[in-house]
Amino acid sequence: MNDTSPAAYGSDLHLTSVTNPRLKALVRLRRRRARDEAGVTLAEGYEEVALAVGAGIVPRTLFYCHDLMLDPADQSRLVDDARARGAETISLSRAAFEKVAYREGPDGFLAVLPRVGVTLADLDVPDNALLLIAEGIEKPGNLGAMLRSAEAAGVHAVIAVDPVTDWGNPNVIRASKGAVYAVPVATATLAEMLAWLARRGIRLVATTPDTTTRHTDADLTGPLAIAVGTEKYGLTGAFLDAADERVRIPMAGAINSLNAGVAAAIVLFEAVRQRCLSG
Amino acid sequence: MNDTSPAAYGSDLHLTSVTNPRLKALVRLRRRRARDEAGVTLAEGYEEVALAVGAGIVPRTLFYCHDLMLDPADQSRLVDDARARGAETISLSRAAFEKVAYREGPDGFLAVLPRVGVTLADLDVPDNALLLIAEGIEKPGNLGAMLRSAEAAGVHAVIAVDPVTDWGNPNVIRASKGAVYAVPVATATLAEMLAWLARRGIRLVATTPDTTTRHTDADLTGPLAIAVGTEKYGLTGAFLDAADERVRIPMAGAINSLNAGVAAAIVLFEAVRQRCLSG
Repeated sequence: MNDTSPAAYGSDLHLTSVTNPRLKALVRLRRRRARDEAGVTLAEGYEEVALAVGAGIVPRTLFYCHDLMLDPADQSRLVDDARARGAETISLSRAAFEKVAYREGPDGFLAVLPRVGVTLADLDVPDNALLLIAEGIEKPGNLGAMLRSAEAAGVHAVIAVDPVTDWGNPNVIRASKGAVYAVPVATATLAEMLAWLARRGIRLVATTPDTTTRHTDADLTGPLAIAVGTEKYGLTGAFLDAADERVRIPMAGAINSLNAGVAAAIVLFEAVRQRCLSG
Repeated sequence: MNDTSPAAYGSDLHLTSVTNPRLKALVRLRRRRARDEAGVTLAEGYEEVALAVGAGIVPRTLFYCHDLMLDPADQSRLVDDARARGAETISLSRAAFEKVAYREGPDGFLAVLPRVGVTLADLDVPDNALLLIAEGIEKPGNLGAMLRSAEAAGVHAVIAVDPVTDWGNPNVIRASKGAVYAVPVATATLAEMLAWLARRGIRLVATTPDTTTRHTDADLTGPLAIAVGTEKYGLTGAFLDAADERVRIPMAGAINSLNAGVAAAIVLFEAVRQRCLSG
């Protein structure tokens, strides 16, 4: 077991007992309330942690396990990098890591990171902003997937209105492929968001099946926020009433439904197309 | 236990033993090989089964459990409907159903259905076809999600080239939200597919980051097949070499990746936009 030689961890703490209090505290962070109280979020997996560190986020603590890394020679550089930026780094035995991991097939990286997301008051967007607003999203995977698409489309921020899940949910981070660190995200109530958009002169375009205007027929240039609701119920009536324009994605099939994240991506990339032509 | 009254099942067989041979045979169908040998596929969940039956598919057997149904009064009509079309219907106790269910939170519906998908020789598409081709897709959820988006975009068929998963995988059916019954699907090798497209004069447009042509700048009208590869590796070199045109989705972010199903949806709906304008 060459990973038990002290040299493998430098001067890092090495924990092997699955009952260690640090590990118990880490497992408690799976609950949203515990994360909120601590002001932290979790990211598991080399790719997610590397994206966070690459985006300038310094983990409070990075737990790692050489035995589980797919490519220890290359990937342990991420541990060195995080340590050099000021992160506490703790080496775990395989048994200990497998106990704290929350994904199947853990790859030896689990980071406790500062909380993700800001309030609207702290959100800074350019004059010709393109924003995505997601109302009432329940599934962390959907919120993360939307964020990933929004990042690819180049949006300036993603705002969750009255969300059931939170930006710090590990499955949001995972599904976002780290986009949660690359795009500013915020949480707000509907009233807060409407006031914020109005102050900045940002138009609100709502996606809904209940309109005849296709998304490709609407003007999606200029300061703009595109809103999507839940897959099951769509945007609320209050939200739709407040929108400047309603658009629908024309559907040709019999089932008449698109994944919420896919719908967001289709409208965002149509906005990108129009903005390329106009700019 | 009002569901144990014979009237609740009509004349249906009612199984309560989790060791019943019919249930053992059902569990074996979770394996692809067993499904292939039997020429069947599985669909679990009221929504999926209802979509299949609504699309005219007659289950070979529909296993159901009143105790687990969310709305037994309404949903048990699906059992009557399937029986009237010729399906064998078998009532299960809660314990028996929970043993055969493969999803979390089973809702009392599990159907054995005839195999999904045809060979290219049996695939019939119109002159101005719009097709989606997915190469090498591994994750059933991705293949299903693509199918769902393709159905919404109104494609005439989806062809899986050298797929690692199969159309009959229960998770494909689930992620497709039943679209697998609403859109013709086929499986082929790359050579078979190229020959088939050439015979019909269908242009092949490949999505890849390795081109400067944006998908919105390419002509996506006329008989057309849009191809996407795996999220990790994209389309193979052999596939890209064979394509008539390569297009990329312009990405503005730092992460530079889109979910394969999202990428397919973005290009398909751009094709829909162009075809609306031209038609």
